[in-house]
Amino acid sequence: VRDDLAEIDRNIRPGTAIGCGQTIRRLTKGPVLEEDMSPRAVVARIRADMSEFRDRNGLDGVVAVNVASTEPYMAGMPGFYRNLKALQGAIMEGVPGLTAGVLYAYAAFECGFPYVNFTPSPASDIPALQEMALERKIPHAGKDGKTGETLLKTALAPMFVARNFRVMSWEGYNMFGNRDAVVLDDPRNNEAKTRGKDRALRAIFGDPPDLHTRVRIDYVPSLDDWKTAWDFIHFRGFLGTKMIMQVIWQGCDSMLAAPLVLDLIRLADLARRRGEYGLMKHLCCFFKNPTGVDVHDFWAQMAMLKSYAAACLQEKRR
Amino acid sequence: VRDDLAEIDRNIRPGTAIGCGQTIRRLTKGPVLEEDMSPRAVVARIRADMSEFRDRNGLDGVVAVNVASTEPYMAGMPGFYRNLKALQGAIMEGVPGLTAGVLYAYAAFECGFPYVNFTPSPASDIPALQEMALERKIPHAGKDGKTGETLLKTALAPMFVARNFRVMSWEGYNMFGNRDAVVLDDPRNNEAKTRGKDRALRAIFGDPPDLHTRVRIDYVPSLDDWKTAWDFIHFRGFLGTKMIMQVIWQGCDSMLAAPLVLDLIRLADLARRRGEYGLMKHLCCFFKNPTGVDVHDFWAQMAMLKSYAAACLQEKRR
Amino acid sequence: VRDDLAEIDRNIRPGTAIGCGQTIRRLTKGPVLEEDMSPRAVVARIRADMSEFRDRNGLDGVVAVNVASTEPYMAGMPGFYRNLKALQGAIMEGVPGLTAGVLYAYAAFECGFPYVNFTPSPASDIPALQEMALERKIPHAGKDGKTGETLLKTALAPMFVARNFRVMSWEGYNMFGNRDAVVLDDPRNNEAKTRGKDRALRAIFGDPPDLHTRVRIDYVPSLDDWKTAWDFIHFRGFLGTKMIMQVIWQGCDSMLAAPLVLDLIRLADLARRRGEYGLMKHLCCFFKNPTGVDVHDFWAQMAMLKSYAAACLQEKRR
Amino acid sequence: VRDDLAEIDRNIRPGTAIGCGQTIRRLTKGPVLEEDMSPRAVVARIRADMSEFRDRNGLDGVVAVNVASTEPYMAGMPGFYRNLKALQGAIMEGVPGLTAGVLYAYAAFECGFPYVNFTPSPASDIPALQEMALERKIPHAGKDGKTGETLLKTALAPMFVARNFRVMSWEGYNMFGNRDAVVLDDPRNNEAKTRGKDRALRAIFGDPPDLHTRVRIDYVPSLDDWKTAWDFIHFRGFLGTKMIMQVIWQGCDSMLAAPLVLDLIRLADLARRRGEYGLMKHLCCFFKNPTGVDVHDFWAQMAMLKSYAAACLQEKRR
Repeated sequence: VRDDLAEIDRNIRPGTAIGCGQTIRRLTKGPVLEEDMSPRAVVARIRADMSEFRDRNGLDGVVAVNVASTEPYMAGMPGFYRNLKALQGAIMEGVPGLTAGVLYAYAAFECGFPYVNFTPSPASDIPALQEMALERKIPHAGKDGKTGETLLKTALAPMFVARNFRVMSWEGYNMFGNRDAVVLDDPRNNEAKTRGKDRALRAIFGDPPDLHTRVRIDYVPSLDDWKTAWDFIHFRGFLGTKMIMQVIWQGCDSMLAAPLVLDLIRLADLARRRGEYGLMKHLCCFFKNPTGVDVHDFWAQMAMLKSYAAACLQEKRR
Repeated sequence: VRDDLAEIDRNIRPGTAIGCGQTIRRLTKGPVLEEDMSPRAVVARIRADMSEFRDRNGLDGVVAVNVASTEPYMAGMPGFYRNLKALQGAIMEGVPGLTAGVLYAYAAFECGFPYVNFTPSPASDIPALQEMALERKIPHAGKDGKTGETLLKTALAPMFVARNFRVMSWEGYNMFGNRDAVVLDDPRNNEAKTRGKDRALRAIFGDPPDLHTRVRIDYVPSLDDWKTAWDFIHFRGFLGTKMIMQVIWQGCDSMLAAPLVLDLIRLADLARRRGEYGLMKHLCCFFKNPTGVDVHDFWAQMAMLKSYAAACLQEKRR
Repeated sequence: VRDDLAEIDRNIRPGTAIGCGQTIRRLTKGPVLEEDMSPRAVVARIRADMSEFRDRNGLDGVVAVNVASTEPYMAGMPGFYRNLKALQGAIMEGVPGLTAGVLYAYAAFECGFPYVNFTPSPASDIPALQEMALERKIPHAGKDGKTGETLLKTALAPMFVARNFRVMSWEGYNMFGNRDAVVLDDPRNNEAKTRGKDRALRAIFGDPPDLHTRVRIDYVPSLDDWKTAWDFIHFRGFLGTKMIMQVIWQGCDSMLAAPLVLDLIRLADLARRRGEYGLMKHLCCFFKNPTGVDVHDFWAQMAMLKSYAAACLQEKRR
Repeated sequence: VRDDLAEIDRNIRPGTAIGCGQTIRRLTKGPVLEEDMSPRAVVARIRADMSEFRDRNGLDGVVAVNVASTEPYMAGMPGFYRNLKALQGAIMEGVPGLTAGVLYAYAAFECGFPYVNFTPSPASDIPALQEMALERKIPHAGKDGKTGETLLKTALAPMFVARNFRVMSWEGYNMFGNRDAVVLDDPRNNEAKTRGKDRALRAIFGDPPDLHTRVRIDYVPSLDDWKTAWDFIHFRGFLGTKMIMQVIWQGCDSMLAAPLVLDLIRLADLARRRGEYGLMKHLCCFFKNPTGVDVHDFWAQMAMLKSYAAACLQEKRR
């Protein structure tokens, strides 16, 4: 596979880790865009690299996908993320507080490339970039790929609703040992990942006041890329009888993510070719926290994807 | 609760265990319809008891539900179960091979009562009784209540399809300790229960030739009414990577069955009042092995129930 | 049981929660020894209550047992816990930093009563009180009752050693919902409980540098007194092959603790009657973190208890 | 590794599958000692092969180990297995009912080689061969290697005894997919493997009349060499409170067996060099069903091995 790897290598460029925190910085081994480079110069450089990628590979379309590690939790969104003009000003002036995910998405949009955010970090979902996507007529989607435990939760939780079981507690313990796990061993990055991870359950169960949920994600070096999760579900059935369901999931993290990334690229490119733009809400089944959609029930999400596919087919036949 | 129990007691009548095998016979403690009573007399007696039940309680409608223990496996269906005339002949003549579930369903239909088969035993699903239901214009449904592990399977298996995971093995081990479990400790009754238990998975996965499934149901006295099941699911993800999901279910068997029985009674009575008859296919989400419907995906089954409910509502509004 | 409860009630006295932190304070509903009472007065009061308990019930011997909730973690031990004179001085002067567990043990020792510490809080294990026990010739033991998950760990870990399996990771997730769990929901109390919880494993495995362990204890209200734990053990067998063992434990916390407390009382009283004093090292099998003994292997601990019992029997026969 | 494999290949000889049943026969692909060869000729041939193995490899000692698949269950032992003279007569006359394991052990003993039975099949444990081992002064041991689930059971069950927990049910479900598993998919071979598998538990718990145990071993092709077991343990604690422990074991079958086989060879050879003969009872910790020893508690078994090792060391020092 030497030639394939060399070919891939030719397409790799130094990136930026602005606002990604000390842990990601510490783990970054290859060249990084100079820290004294201004955000404006960083964006210009990324944009040039992306365009060159398209040209060198003779491609018609390119889709930018964020599969970087989780950025540290940000308590409130910076004011300049709230509209496009403010964001552009912040980039021009090099205001502190800019984060890598946002700069990449901005650069992709400047190239006119569709963008997919497979991470929980802020990116094309901030108001400034949603505005830019509409203005430039570019499709985008996010955020945080629904690969394992959340997939399971959103596929299984509707069963409890359908049978009128009242879930009292849904406790999820996740462990894995790859690079992403090392990053999540930093409490600030972990907070960004686990915060809001119970949103899906609350949405599906109608946010009952006495529902208890917890999501822990722990770094266990020996597991490498094998994500192992234990979900403990405590629920009441008929006459309040307490019952228990437990799920143990042993999946290979990258092998769960990769096919979703490929499908997202195909679907984002299809949207571009069909002239669609803005949020691709029909892709919500791919995300833990789908931007712009409040549907978390996996079966309702799949129905959206299928009806989109049916509409595409019908148009094609006409 | 003494008065309530006495009231319930007043409604209990001796039943028949014809064709139910030695184990059920051995466990039957109360009075049983005389073994030397002819099938014809048994049917007449059950019919009289059912009618009297309606009259004594001043009821408008009655729904007959079969919640008896599983009858032993029958290799082939007796010829006289294939059409109504043959069945009637067999009952009149007292031909050997008649089974209790069928006699109860026949008696209910003679009363004009809707019938629900919550067990895997033959009953209103045999051709003779399907014919009778249509002729007498009575609604009925079955069979085998989907209370625990099969519910889980049919809710979860579609997730594997949606994500293009190839399930290689789905092994289900069930244990419980109540009276039904004692009956299933007899291999002949067990065969009737577990046979065809993988039909749902095969239907959902499109019957791949290399799919391996197993369902074992074992009697564990100390568990009493607590059904405990372990499901081991071995599947391939991207690039053939083998992954594992395991589910442990600890549910109270009767508390899982009871609310389904109540809902089935309500829905069967609704169908009667709406003038519907024959198989109530829209109730397939309640059954492990829904008669007359090849839909096993729980979400597709729920969609059928919801669209029926929507139609009822719409009619009501008109 | 009204009379029994009334009898028990007559023996209950207000206690102290000095140094137990805000969470324990908040949860304490009955009367508490006045906060403006000096430590000296508190000790006098507890001592009087204990003596009165003995006298009122006409008892020959009394054993004091600490089964209170976990006190918050203390980064370093206060200097005045290091020898008896300093401790006595601190109590007399009412120096800040004294904790309830220590005051109770001190009071018990002043009464001449054997003492057992069933909690992880500092008590008779501090140097000052170990000194006092020797001086006054009183037996005592601790600390932290080995009721569930740690019992399992110390019984199971030696198997990995015996078969030369190299444990890479032992991850333990515990959940429960009783009053002790509410207290452990406070990070400071939780730290005191989980810190050093991997000492047993490290001792059994010979403290290999690459061993990864984690113990989490989480509050899940719906579980009430049912402690549920998941242990994930990742180990290497022959030729480095990675294998996995998982254990799920569903035990009733109080029902696990109660019989150990009873046995400890009997054994402490036996030691008193036999004229033994100081640390009862032969009781190490009862404790997560046995004071003064570095034996954690449950089977080695049991051997110590059995050889003590054998010696007692032999003496009796003589 | 081509040369190593070729070297190993040079040492492989056709074997016999007499009395091993249809399933083993069906799976046997290489050359087999002619079915029309008499048992006497088979023994002579195996003996010649074993001696030649020693000579060709210039070895001082050779240990014969049976790691073949499980032979079908035999309801009663043939009369000619009861003493050496009868066995020799049966071999000479070619009486039907002889089984491969016995012929191999007999041939090894004729060569004067120590023998280890790592399978549940009859071999050196039959009275005839125990007699022969004593007569010829050869050490031997068996039977059925304690690799996974039984290891776990015998290491864990004593914990329940030590804490006075009353085990009501211990249900073990095993799955794997290698060649041995294919053989166990035949009910007759399975019976030979699972029969008596609860002997260890009954011995440890003192055979309480209400103990319920079950061991199932099922063939699941996709698992290949990965043995996966679920143990469900239902027990009563203080005041009869029912509690549950579950263990899930995911081990690589061959990687669990191989190091035990190596150690057994070393220890059998040590015994030979030390002039020991007859049953090596001190090796009982290696076997599910140790011949001639009624000790099943793994910790008591380990103590036997350790005291043997200590005695060896002491002798060496003298």
